[in-house]
Amino acid sequence: MTTGQITIKPRYCECDPMGVAHHSVYPVWFEMGRTELLRSTGISYREFEEEGVFLAVVRLDVRYKQSARYDDDLVLETEITSIGRVKIEHAYRLLREEVLIATGHTTLACLNSEGAACLLPDRLRSSVDSC
Amino acid sequence: MTTGQITIKPRYCECDPMGVAHHSVYPVWFEMGRTELLRSTGISYREFEEEGVFLAVVRLDVRYKQSARYDDDLVLETEITSIGRVKIEHAYRLLREEVLIATGHTTLACLNSEGAACLLPDRLRSSVDSC
Amino acid sequence: MTTGQITIKPRYCECDPMGVAHHSVYPVWFEMGRTELLRSTGISYREFEEEGVFLAVVRLDVRYKQSARYDDDLVLETEITSIGRVKIEHAYRLLREEVLIATGHTTLACLNSEGAACLLPDRLRSSVDSC
Amino acid sequence: MTTGQITIKPRYCECDPMGVAHHSVYPVWFEMGRTELLRSTGISYREFEEEGVFLAVVRLDVRYKQSARYDDDLVLETEITSIGRVKIEHAYRLLREEVLIATGHTTLACLNSEGAACLLPDRLRSSVDSC
Repeated sequence: MTTGQITIKPRYCECDPMGVAHHSVYPVWFEMGRTELLRSTGISYREFEEEGVFLAVVRLDVRYKQSARYDDDLVLETEITSIGRVKIEHAYRLLREEVLIATGHTTLACLNSEGAACLLPDRLRSSVDSC
Repeated sequence: MTTGQITIKPRYCECDPMGVAHHSVYPVWFEMGRTELLRSTGISYREFEEEGVFLAVVRLDVRYKQSARYDDDLVLETEITSIGRVKIEHAYRLLREEVLIATGHTTLACLNSEGAACLLPDRLRSSVDSC
Repeated sequence: MTTGQITIKPRYCECDPMGVAHHSVYPVWFEMGRTELLRSTGISYREFEEEGVFLAVVRLDVRYKQSARYDDDLVLETEITSIGRVKIEHAYRLLREEVLIATGHTTLACLNSEGAACLLPDRLRSSVDSC
Repeated sequence: MTTGQITIKPRYCECDPMGVAHHSVYPVWFEMGRTELLRSTGISYREFEEEGVFLAVVRLDVRYKQSARYDDDLVLETEITSIGRVKIEHAYRLLREEVLIATGHTTLACLNSEGAACLLPDRLRSSVDSC
């Protein structure tokens, strides 16, 4: 299935008094991973929204294994693990060199501009299938 | 001029590796102060937006005098210092008991849903004048 | 088991271009729920940290069922569902009146100031047991 | 004086219901600009902190001129405009191609690990003087 990598450097304000990246910022990084993975298949999420198609997170699961610190050089691997008619699932692995920092999974549902479930756009499905 | 007070407790994720509230969260607190000040005059900012009226920050100035820490009991005083035809100015004082933590000023401009400057709604101007 | 409630009003900056609270802010609200639940048993998390005891999130799971919007009046119910020697588990239900917005679960591990696993403080365990 | 450039892409969660980057995220971008400017002179802010030297923002001023949107390609120019014995000042210009989005200024003070004012490290002063 389609996979991609981005680099992440935890920002100062993303780190907490323990000196480590706060756990609530990982879902933000996952979203960045999804955006860039989509872009790599030739699709802009911003264009989706301009056409009235939205992808809403309906499930999030994160396992935190090691801390990440301010200014660390991290790599986030994002993979599409399943794509159905209205939902798409991703898996994530966050690494600092060989050290596994965290893993995660999300499920997104496709919504129209009224917030009702709708079919994932064909060009998203076909871009994934062709990978 | 119209003034109001809210209480603030810095959240854990709002504090940085120095153990103090990050400077970028103060503008967020100022916005909360404005929302509640507006509400105290009987106006909901959410209703404004539903009517297509937006208030955009065009200037922000903050002086940080002392640190605020996680779980501190802070008081934010918000005051409308000037109201014109399209702009409104606020001043802020953030305190922990008698200690002055920070002061700030903002200027907001009224925009319509296309992002063009427009007149501040009459009921905002009159609610301020009557205080 | 010990339970508590707090009220939440999504802040403007917590809402995204879809007009709804961004999914990454839910873990922040859950943390606020834990802090207040702890406080209700007479324990300050800030004091824990001052004594060199830290609670780190090692697992997070959220199911998003309905959107929350700016300035909504939400209630977050937080419950301790399990407490062991080094880990503590919480469950969350976020509601807008009778509507269930989201549910969540977290597992926290107790760490010392070097980041090594350590026993949960006795007074935390006993405060929970006595509820 | 020393200057540097970084690229910025507003994240989805940094944008608000108006569809534009929230004003509170600009100070976060300015901090990123300072970190990379420092790095370009061969200094890591993280190392500073590990040696017990902290730079705290004591003044922030931002003028917002145009909106920035999700996924825009922005450039942030950061310049050191003044360096004294304990304080350092920066100016910022945020651009989308030729369009000026915002300008800003900050003043930072050097603090030791007890939070008391202290002299800026010699190697910071000399790295700036030599540019």
